[in-house]
Amino acid sequence: MVNYDFPRPAVTVDLVTFRVRDEQLQILLIQRPEAPFEGGWALPGGFVHEDEALEATARRVLDAKASLHEVHLEQLATFGAPDRDSRDRVISVAYFAILDVDAVYEGPGRWFAVDALPATAFDHDDITSTAIERLRGKLGYTDIGFAFMPKEFTLGALQKTWEAVLGAPLDKRNFRKSILAREQVEATGRKSTGGAHPPAMIYRRTR
Amino acid sequence: MVNYDFPRPAVTVDLVTFRVRDEQLQILLIQRPEAPFEGGWALPGGFVHEDEALEATARRVLDAKASLHEVHLEQLATFGAPDRDSRDRVISVAYFAILDVDAVYEGPGRWFAVDALPATAFDHDDITSTAIERLRGKLGYTDIGFAFMPKEFTLGALQKTWEAVLGAPLDKRNFRKSILAREQVEATGRKSTGGAHPPAMIYRRTR
Repeated sequence: MVNYDFPRPAVTVDLVTFRVRDEQLQILLIQRPEAPFEGGWALPGGFVHEDEALEATARRVLDAKASLHEVHLEQLATFGAPDRDSRDRVISVAYFAILDVDAVYEGPGRWFAVDALPATAFDHDDITSTAIERLRGKLGYTDIGFAFMPKEFTLGALQKTWEAVLGAPLDKRNFRKSILAREQVEATGRKSTGGAHPPAMIYRRTR
Repeated sequence: MVNYDFPRPAVTVDLVTFRVRDEQLQILLIQRPEAPFEGGWALPGGFVHEDEALEATARRVLDAKASLHEVHLEQLATFGAPDRDSRDRVISVAYFAILDVDAVYEGPGRWFAVDALPATAFDHDDITSTAIERLRGKLGYTDIGFAFMPKEFTLGALQKTWEAVLGAPLDKRNFRKSILAREQVEATGRKSTGGAHPPAMIYRRTR
């Protein structure tokens, strides 16, 4: 045992789960079954078990509460204000997850558009806004946005997803130019068929 | 108390402190006074005290071990592999700090160039490489690099600092063009005097 002369904290993982549906960036919240904040909305979370890696806790929370497996999962930041939980010192390692457009969600909770979130328990408003800011920031300099996409997609569908994440419209020509310049996508050579739109080239991620 | 059915972890803050000296990116390490890894090099760190915010722990470690106050301080990531400390479950919230070129360091420990680091205790190699990668990445899309600089500087000095952080030479013309395009600096209207070089325009950060 290390020489630790003060009460040890409890450590949790809280999870911000993103998806894009109906051209909205959405987040999963659950209703707390117990005090404090009983009946209030909160991020899914759980205590870090003995001998459990932090990411393993995050995956357990995601599996137990979101019934999903293949997702982008990334550590966000750790929130440790001494008074963030009235009961006890609880330090939360926050993660965020991204579900792609084909992911089927069957777990408990409710999806909220990020521009219409209810108040949440503890400091979960802060965790959530940190996650949204991180996601939007990384859209510009990483390939994180493709975690929302299916394997193949049109540039139109890609733009709509980016716009939903950013919560703002993008100029079509600049968007295409920028995406193609970054060499993140390549044409499959096939075109979309059916639907109300004229056929559009289908792209996939560059490997 | 929250209902927590397993041994609680100890929580520490470990600190990666960067500076640029002698055209090198350097990191501060201390020699461990006790087992495990007695006499080995390690990042400065300390346990999170009761009622102490995580960033306050980081500042305490920095003040106690680095004798410095005004620095850029930022949370890096949390490292929680169950076996990272042989004695006990210890979860480390890692921060990184940047000292500017004028900071006087009088604390214990030794500065190592990042390309000549010794092996370090626990998972500190991993924490350190994560910090270097984060710092280099953020140099391109944030204003973090200016934390190394004094209030006023020539573009030549700025380029030398960037090169030290990246560990690679930069093209002078492209560097100047990129820095000026990002509107991160503005000319003071004064020129440097003295020294072996011809007078050069002095710049400062754009507010």
